[in-house]
Amino acid sequence: MADVKRVVLAYSGGLDTSVILKWLQTTYGCEVVTFTADLGQGEELEPARKKAELLGIKPEHIFIEDVREEFVSDYVFPMFRANALYEGLYLLGTSIARPLIAKKQIEIARKVGGDAVSHGATGKGNDQVRFELSYYALEPEIKIIAPWREWDLRSREQLIAFAESHQIPIAKDKRGEAPFSVDANLLHSSSEGKVLEDPAVEAPEFVYQRTIAPEDAPDRPAYITVGFEKGDAVSIDGEALSPASLLTRLNALGKENGIGRLDLVENRFVGMKSRGVYETPGGTILLKAHRGIESITLDRGAAHLKDEIMPRYAELIYNGFWFSPEREMLQALIDKSQEMVTGDVRLKLYKGNVEVVGRSSPYSLYNQDLVTFEEGAVAYDHRDAAGFIKLNALRLRTLGSRARKIGG
Amino acid sequence: MADVKRVVLAYSGGLDTSVILKWLQTTYGCEVVTFTADLGQGEELEPARKKAELLGIKPEHIFIEDVREEFVSDYVFPMFRANALYEGLYLLGTSIARPLIAKKQIEIARKVGGDAVSHGATGKGNDQVRFELSYYALEPEIKIIAPWREWDLRSREQLIAFAESHQIPIAKDKRGEAPFSVDANLLHSSSEGKVLEDPAVEAPEFVYQRTIAPEDAPDRPAYITVGFEKGDAVSIDGEALSPASLLTRLNALGKENGIGRLDLVENRFVGMKSRGVYETPGGTILLKAHRGIESITLDRGAAHLKDEIMPRYAELIYNGFWFSPEREMLQALIDKSQEMVTGDVRLKLYKGNVEVVGRSSPYSLYNQDLVTFEEGAVAYDHRDAAGFIKLNALRLRTLGSRARKIGG
Amino acid sequence: MADVKRVVLAYSGGLDTSVILKWLQTTYGCEVVTFTADLGQGEELEPARKKAELLGIKPEHIFIEDVREEFVSDYVFPMFRANALYEGLYLLGTSIARPLIAKKQIEIARKVGGDAVSHGATGKGNDQVRFELSYYALEPEIKIIAPWREWDLRSREQLIAFAESHQIPIAKDKRGEAPFSVDANLLHSSSEGKVLEDPAVEAPEFVYQRTIAPEDAPDRPAYITVGFEKGDAVSIDGEALSPASLLTRLNALGKENGIGRLDLVENRFVGMKSRGVYETPGGTILLKAHRGIESITLDRGAAHLKDEIMPRYAELIYNGFWFSPEREMLQALIDKSQEMVTGDVRLKLYKGNVEVVGRSSPYSLYNQDLVTFEEGAVAYDHRDAAGFIKLNALRLRTLGSRARKIGG
Amino acid sequence: MADVKRVVLAYSGGLDTSVILKWLQTTYGCEVVTFTADLGQGEELEPARKKAELLGIKPEHIFIEDVREEFVSDYVFPMFRANALYEGLYLLGTSIARPLIAKKQIEIARKVGGDAVSHGATGKGNDQVRFELSYYALEPEIKIIAPWREWDLRSREQLIAFAESHQIPIAKDKRGEAPFSVDANLLHSSSEGKVLEDPAVEAPEFVYQRTIAPEDAPDRPAYITVGFEKGDAVSIDGEALSPASLLTRLNALGKENGIGRLDLVENRFVGMKSRGVYETPGGTILLKAHRGIESITLDRGAAHLKDEIMPRYAELIYNGFWFSPEREMLQALIDKSQEMVTGDVRLKLYKGNVEVVGRSSPYSLYNQDLVTFEEGAVAYDHRDAAGFIKLNALRLRTLGSRARKIGG
Repeated sequence: MADVKRVVLAYSGGLDTSVILKWLQTTYGCEVVTFTADLGQGEELEPARKKAELLGIKPEHIFIEDVREEFVSDYVFPMFRANALYEGLYLLGTSIARPLIAKKQIEIARKVGGDAVSHGATGKGNDQVRFELSYYALEPEIKIIAPWREWDLRSREQLIAFAESHQIPIAKDKRGEAPFSVDANLLHSSSEGKVLEDPAVEAPEFVYQRTIAPEDAPDRPAYITVGFEKGDAVSIDGEALSPASLLTRLNALGKENGIGRLDLVENRFVGMKSRGVYETPGGTILLKAHRGIESITLDRGAAHLKDEIMPRYAELIYNGFWFSPEREMLQALIDKSQEMVTGDVRLKLYKGNVEVVGRSSPYSLYNQDLVTFEEGAVAYDHRDAAGFIKLNALRLRTLGSRARKIGG
Repeated sequence: MADVKRVVLAYSGGLDTSVILKWLQTTYGCEVVTFTADLGQGEELEPARKKAELLGIKPEHIFIEDVREEFVSDYVFPMFRANALYEGLYLLGTSIARPLIAKKQIEIARKVGGDAVSHGATGKGNDQVRFELSYYALEPEIKIIAPWREWDLRSREQLIAFAESHQIPIAKDKRGEAPFSVDANLLHSSSEGKVLEDPAVEAPEFVYQRTIAPEDAPDRPAYITVGFEKGDAVSIDGEALSPASLLTRLNALGKENGIGRLDLVENRFVGMKSRGVYETPGGTILLKAHRGIESITLDRGAAHLKDEIMPRYAELIYNGFWFSPEREMLQALIDKSQEMVTGDVRLKLYKGNVEVVGRSSPYSLYNQDLVTFEEGAVAYDHRDAAGFIKLNALRLRTLGSRARKIGG
Repeated sequence: MADVKRVVLAYSGGLDTSVILKWLQTTYGCEVVTFTADLGQGEELEPARKKAELLGIKPEHIFIEDVREEFVSDYVFPMFRANALYEGLYLLGTSIARPLIAKKQIEIARKVGGDAVSHGATGKGNDQVRFELSYYALEPEIKIIAPWREWDLRSREQLIAFAESHQIPIAKDKRGEAPFSVDANLLHSSSEGKVLEDPAVEAPEFVYQRTIAPEDAPDRPAYITVGFEKGDAVSIDGEALSPASLLTRLNALGKENGIGRLDLVENRFVGMKSRGVYETPGGTILLKAHRGIESITLDRGAAHLKDEIMPRYAELIYNGFWFSPEREMLQALIDKSQEMVTGDVRLKLYKGNVEVVGRSSPYSLYNQDLVTFEEGAVAYDHRDAAGFIKLNALRLRTLGSRARKIGG
Repeated sequence: MADVKRVVLAYSGGLDTSVILKWLQTTYGCEVVTFTADLGQGEELEPARKKAELLGIKPEHIFIEDVREEFVSDYVFPMFRANALYEGLYLLGTSIARPLIAKKQIEIARKVGGDAVSHGATGKGNDQVRFELSYYALEPEIKIIAPWREWDLRSREQLIAFAESHQIPIAKDKRGEAPFSVDANLLHSSSEGKVLEDPAVEAPEFVYQRTIAPEDAPDRPAYITVGFEKGDAVSIDGEALSPASLLTRLNALGKENGIGRLDLVENRFVGMKSRGVYETPGGTILLKAHRGIESITLDRGAAHLKDEIMPRYAELIYNGFWFSPEREMLQALIDKSQEMVTGDVRLKLYKGNVEVVGRSSPYSLYNQDLVTFEEGAVAYDHRDAAGFIKLNALRLRTLGSRARKIGG
């Protein structure tokens, strides 16, 4: 077992990380420093402070920070510039939050002279990988304690027993086994486990926490306009909003229109398939809007190149390689494309649907004159198409001649 | 002007191709052979035969064929195995029909001794490219006549005038200028031009022909189960269906649930952006269903490789390269992955939404034991994750050490 | 420690694997079955049999097989169809042999009722990964024993001491520490470690075992003609040869002309960089020859697609994923392209250089008429180029107009 | 025919472009402005000035510029950062020069109020595309005159006759038909046509102009050290050199050691195959050296990503899309990777061979401690490999189990 003096723990204030806190103290005999972030998960942070104090953490070792703006502007928005979807569908809501938490922990470790970091992710999931790859990339010699891989607590009962024997307060509703586990931040909520484990069975309605059902959404569509500057959303219906405020607003709009639910079986980086239910109300709107503004401001060459590298980029984020040179290289490519991605997108929100119904931009590449059926003054001669086709066909004709020669 | 003896024309029976038919006769002094296909566009074919006869085509030179089954089994289904989306959104409904029509024209040309083929696609669109690349690939020495690039008819009025002066009957409702142009087949309907040309303005409801509005769809969700074998849909709710029958059924389900509308600004191969409205009711369901069955039957390595090559594959089809070695190579890759893509997907259809709510397969790779929180008999040791992470992190740590060395 | 009854060991007859053999017997108390393959490494196999007998292996548990033909036809040739190079330079000589050895071990385990397999690869290299991924893919429940990761022998001295204390005969020249370690098979020899570890220092001449130095090669070039059928080499100078015989012949030609040396720093899958010296005399010739025949028989679309996926394919093989769906999918794509890759390539071999100087094929796509400066009867109209360029330029012109509008 | 007032011609001073100059004057009745660039092609430029004057060009309309430094620093070096090879072999020597010439022509057109540009590239080659895409990208409304596609001069004889009838001086050795055509600049010389047109026949020695034959090179190897900073070569044997001076020096070294010859059948963008002989002495050394320094300074993730996008990047340059958003996006990705690509590479040059024999860097990622056989203080635990392999194998084992279940 590593010799640890001071460990920075990603601490939510919940039962699990409170048990971890105590376990770290008793097992490693080390000082614990807690970091609790407001990522928009929708929970009060002060209870976490109180609980940390109760568990003996020194006040100057309790770090609580509202990182919502940083989360959206430096992580969520760069990712959305890429239209990133993992396995064609998943908006990466959990994946994108982990590097930020890890970075904060490392920064605190440097500040307080910590020699280790710890997290509450389990040994079968992706999050342990995301946390730890980030830790190592930022601080290669840091010690990492992953309690779920180390201790011998093997069930909920044992966890509760440990808590009780160490005077850790347990909220009444946390005594029983939760029917599924949840992760939440400003971008999304995910649910998995237990009642969701059979992929053949529809997810029960009570799993959803962040959105109302499409069936319960208003009978009339809502229309909104999202403004973009250089690839990032900056306003809703003309009102300029900070990144986190904007996403919060979109979340509200998505929620009330039943938008952003996803029931998915995905492939984890650690090698197995798992089934999750995701709710990404604002992000689902944002993705559609971003593709909408790109559709008139991005050149075909740029757009197709982005589409081709996107699955790779999404996979890197999913697997935890945010702080890797290849993610940064892809980001440079993506960001380079966004310089003119500026303008407005009008969207219709209706019972789970988000549809782009209008787009406009001072930098639009859409040229009505070019498209119009009648030939005009513009530089498009129908006869050019003949040459274009004939040279594109030349190699196919050569192939066709060979095929016929052989066939005959 | 090429010396043409006998030309095989893709003939719809409508005004445009009737004018072309006559124009070919009068301009080239050649015999015209017509080919009219039932691709599921929802129009009677017999009127086309009558009209062709009226325009002087010999009965033995009038070819009318129901190609719906071939269309779905040999073109639509192979494409759906790839989850193909052009520019992230478009299901390629028009693109995928062109190679089949071209192939039939070439086959007829061989049968009747034709030395040329002709089509009614305009000089600014993608379809001319798709037709002609296919013609050339299959019959490299064929002559191609593209009237819209050659003649001097430059407006609807001139077209009507030509028709009148050549005794071509004009349906009453075709006299005026249509407010937009339409292409339809069993997979989709597309609308573009005129009222749709300003991408900032919402498409009017009357543009939609194939689907009812989500707002008008039933207030209760419909549930269906689509069965797959080796990547292709084979049944609905347990009833085995031929490819075309299955797609027809899905179209009806999509239509009545307001599913499959898309309003898009896309990049044409010929270089400009255009705005189109697509309705792909059955295809939209099929794509979701196919991803659903793949999610439990496809390995991660296979799934991610498919996702990475998909944009390229879709671009090839969009650009008209169906009959190219690179499309065939990609198809070989895709088809290789589909051998175990067999099973059932349960879907919820509701007012424009299609959601996968269940999947099952005799070949499922989803392993509940592996996912379960509690550690069991299965071959997953939590401690393996530590080694996995540490070796994945090794290069990042080396990079981090370098960064710190330089920084210091 | 796993309970093992009968383990199939990849056994070379050398000191290391003899120590492993004994260690398996004494540590696991299990029966050892040996597998020794002739992969063209250039060593007698009978001594391995004798040594195995001496170490107490039952005759019916000693498996010795000449797998050279299978190695070349089922592993080397498919890989060369892809023109595979890892990190732009490495011909994957070691990587490609591991899956075959693993497959044979699994087959033997099934035959003799073995419940485990074992290999002599160290804990820092790629080979352990390649062996074990292959074992697991072919026999998911097999037990794997990797002695180098398990035992506490930490130096050459300890190994020798173990050997002596267990009556394992030690060849005189194996007593001392070798100045570098070697892997060899019909495709290549690799050397690494010790004297090669400083990447700034030139590899000493004595490291090279398979090739003479270019300086020592004949002063006159040799010319050879390699014949291909469907992407695989089938003859040299008109003489039909089996795969292994052909590669053997090319190796001799390469060796005597100083061809195929490579001094490389590469990135291992396990995360660190290593420096190796490779000698691939025949393979170096084969790669050039294969690209030569492809240059006239492969269409551009096919060739470029192959080039784009090649690094991915090479990485999979390097990392040990030969028996993975994604490698098989890429192989399907590659193989699809090779149907017409038939013909002859003439090569000049001279002091380390291999140059293609001529290529011919019954299926050549090279069309002298098309290239000739003077315009001829063929279907290439110079004016087509104008249209081709103008439509390719259209989007760039639109971008240029936007840039000017903004700039102004 | 376009109405042209003042055309900027890419003028070499040779017979062809002199005929074009005169043809432009007589056919379009326009003023001709000449641009002659020193790209390192090894020809005097003053004769071009004299000839232009003789043909009636005003002195202020004769532009002659030494662009060698710009060529190497802004075009060649960025391209070499990518290790760009077209079709696996071609160093793109011709392709990379065209955008620069086009850019200069456009700049001159703006300066002198030109409304058109013209070049001497033929109607079957790639260069017309490269010139014209660049013109259009930079100046979308420019008129382009491509005489070889327009005029009716169809043979060398007609060209000579035109020259004679217009008092264009003809160098004695230009009267006869050249046995092949040549393009040259500081990066390479290419030869094609006539004696090279049969790809089965070895290129005659007299075709080579830039390199001596390996057979004629010195019998002793030369060793050099190339220094790099941020991906670009900056010194040879410790002597700092400007980009063009450095490439000139490498060319001399390559030439005298018989390095950089390539005999290739390639696929042109316009659709046919052609055979060319390239000589890129300095570039061939530079590519090897660059890969050498990258091998110790670039992380695996970065290196593999670069390798995967390289064929695409090379294709863009080959096809003439230097001034496209997608090339610039890829460049951003590549440049991002080069920040630490600094250090020295030692190379051995010998009779056509270039081999990296040593590399060192202050930013080396090569870690001798990690590689060493014996386990040391460093953070690599052999047992980590077990976990790494087991999780990488997990999906393959799941696949294997399914295969066995089905098989059984």
